[in-house]
Amino acid sequence: MVSRGLDGRDAPTTHSDPSVEEHAAHIRRLLEPLGSRPTESVPLEAAVGRVTASAVLSPVDLPLFRNSQMDGFAVLASDLTALPATLPVVGEIAAAPGRPARLDPGTVVRIMTGAVVPDGADAIVPVEDTDGGRETVTIRRGRVSGEFVRDRGSDLRAGEQLLAAGVRLASRHLAALAAAGIGRVEVTERVRVAVITAGAELVAPGGPATIGQVYDANSVALVAAVVQAGAVVSVAKRVTDDHEAMRAALDAAVATSDLVITSGGISMGEYEVVREVLEPLGARVGHIAMQPGGPQATATVDGIPVVSFPGNPVSTQVSFEIFVAPILREIAGQASAIRQPRLLAAEVRSAPGKRQFLRGRLLDGARVEVVGGPSSHLVAGLAASDVLIDIPAHTTQLREGDQVETVTL
Amino acid sequence: MVSRGLDGRDAPTTHSDPSVEEHAAHIRRLLEPLGSRPTESVPLEAAVGRVTASAVLSPVDLPLFRNSQMDGFAVLASDLTALPATLPVVGEIAAAPGRPARLDPGTVVRIMTGAVVPDGADAIVPVEDTDGGRETVTIRRGRVSGEFVRDRGSDLRAGEQLLAAGVRLASRHLAALAAAGIGRVEVTERVRVAVITAGAELVAPGGPATIGQVYDANSVALVAAVVQAGAVVSVAKRVTDDHEAMRAALDAAVATSDLVITSGGISMGEYEVVREVLEPLGARVGHIAMQPGGPQATATVDGIPVVSFPGNPVSTQVSFEIFVAPILREIAGQASAIRQPRLLAAEVRSAPGKRQFLRGRLLDGARVEVVGGPSSHLVAGLAASDVLIDIPAHTTQLREGDQVETVTL
Repeated sequence: MVSRGLDGRDAPTTHSDPSVEEHAAHIRRLLEPLGSRPTESVPLEAAVGRVTASAVLSPVDLPLFRNSQMDGFAVLASDLTALPATLPVVGEIAAAPGRPARLDPGTVVRIMTGAVVPDGADAIVPVEDTDGGRETVTIRRGRVSGEFVRDRGSDLRAGEQLLAAGVRLASRHLAALAAAGIGRVEVTERVRVAVITAGAELVAPGGPATIGQVYDANSVALVAAVVQAGAVVSVAKRVTDDHEAMRAALDAAVATSDLVITSGGISMGEYEVVREVLEPLGARVGHIAMQPGGPQATATVDGIPVVSFPGNPVSTQVSFEIFVAPILREIAGQASAIRQPRLLAAEVRSAPGKRQFLRGRLLDGARVEVVGGPSSHLVAGLAASDVLIDIPAHTTQLREGDQVETVTL
Repeated sequence: MVSRGLDGRDAPTTHSDPSVEEHAAHIRRLLEPLGSRPTESVPLEAAVGRVTASAVLSPVDLPLFRNSQMDGFAVLASDLTALPATLPVVGEIAAAPGRPARLDPGTVVRIMTGAVVPDGADAIVPVEDTDGGRETVTIRRGRVSGEFVRDRGSDLRAGEQLLAAGVRLASRHLAALAAAGIGRVEVTERVRVAVITAGAELVAPGGPATIGQVYDANSVALVAAVVQAGAVVSVAKRVTDDHEAMRAALDAAVATSDLVITSGGISMGEYEVVREVLEPLGARVGHIAMQPGGPQATATVDGIPVVSFPGNPVSTQVSFEIFVAPILREIAGQASAIRQPRLLAAEVRSAPGKRQFLRGRLLDGARVEVVGGPSSHLVAGLAASDVLIDIPAHTTQLREGDQVETVTL
């Protein structure tokens, strides 16, 4: 049973409020369809950070042709049974386009690393095992057939797997794809996220604010958070408390997006435009046993999931990090946020019945201190934080040196 | 003393070759001027991932004005000495622009979370401590002066530090900057890196290759690696073995860049265009006791550092990761690559006298297996790798279960 009172953002919660775990599981179910991504073909230049939609098979043998592993001389190994051997140098093969002439027995050809090994040759003698001669060369050490020769297809044969499905492409993967001559790769589409910030009090940063107005911190910060989590922002819109404007923003968002995130306007007070527009659409609006971020809502509009956070910047950032970022990161093939136990540098008190996500600053690898208070309007502490300190709902007091779970931001 | 023989890319090295540590230290000195970045002002929308050039002070008090922490009633606390108290509700204040009228003693006003607390009021009574009346309200519980009121400047005063210098901006920092009304932030300029790939054999991926031609894997992969390390690519150019073209590419690169990275063309063989152009300019060209990546060069051209890697894709990727990425990441405020001991899943042999960076795949959190051979042309192993396995130069054999140092890619 969700508490439905006129409960402000920092209101005490009842024991019947859903837990963070329950709400997180609910959002995970709501966002589950996002895991089945459509795919698209992108050029390698635009593919870094994207996730392969399927296994990539090499269209070619790698190496593409039999080539020399050394600077030296291409020889027929059986010509080098009596050593030292002095043989005529009939030419030179650079690492460059073109098929060299067949090597006749009893002759050698100068060859550079990566150059095509001519037919008729079956080994490379490194230059340091010779006198480096130009017209004729004297070879001091023999080589067995195949030595210092990189055979065509010896790294990978055409049709063999170069990359698995689900790989988040980094530079080394692009190197392998490009080496196989692949210019485009099939990747999953990124999740398109709409960001709507709501509130009659909001005004854009960078301009003046009159009394009663608050700078909209959530628009720019949610956009950045969405991008950092590997998704793309389809639309970012700030609306006041006007229902028509909110409904229009919502309709535009669901038409172009896979997920809509809103901040603000979901408390139980008056003029809560997100709640008032979403509730008739069947939204689930309520209070979660957490601080910051108590008021939370979810809905599905035209089949598109909508996740609504409260409007205070700290609440919005923490809510995104706890409820949505893990799912987007998974879809984008990113590593999970690092959860790590650390030791408290000072005593901490926590309200009972709510899971607290305090802002923490690392003092060294092992210790963490709380920065700013627990209240959701305190942005200075947010700016100074390196981690969230995750305090269980039943914990009310922790002492200096006690171990706490931290989430690296 | 650098070995100067016609030493191919996989040539054995002598004990006089500089070590990886020596070459890394040399490159660090060469790139030291990059640490002193010019600064630029960017809008918050473009600031994620950038590094603050100086401490950012809040231009405003935060909160901007005295506001309510709760949905409830703004009161004069001294009116609530006898309880329950029934008082006239003289109006309503939403979180919206505008200065509310002064509250007369003996009256209350409905107020929403975040709304301006009127002069004359000094506390907020949460709605759940009242009967929620509209014309008059009966209050069951008193509040002391200041309770549930967020004072102007109680989070941060104008002129106090909001962000330190050197902070890599993430969404939470943007939230704090925006909340303080800041629309632009002074950040350090990113390092502008030119990428030149060289070799007569190179051809662009995505098209056909004739025998002797090799797809240019390094251009797209170095560009991606540079961007992943927090720098920007000023120019990316592929040149053949033509000296004029190489010199023109180099001149264009140094004119627009803070750092030039080249791949290919620095072996001691013939037709090594990077070496042949850079050596007359005073380049340091030689062989480092490492595999892959033995041939390495550095130069300074028109005051701009040039770092040259060998052309095999594995050599290029490993060289960038070991010699350049750590420095670029530091400048960009990124975390260092994770170095972590892991256990070998199978025996490994390593050539003596060279530090080996083998490609490794993680089998679980603790164990790692080698993928592909040590040779620098093996891109399949590169594509399958999660880590580099760092084998010291003096080590020639390691057994299953032995501990090795790994660098997470």
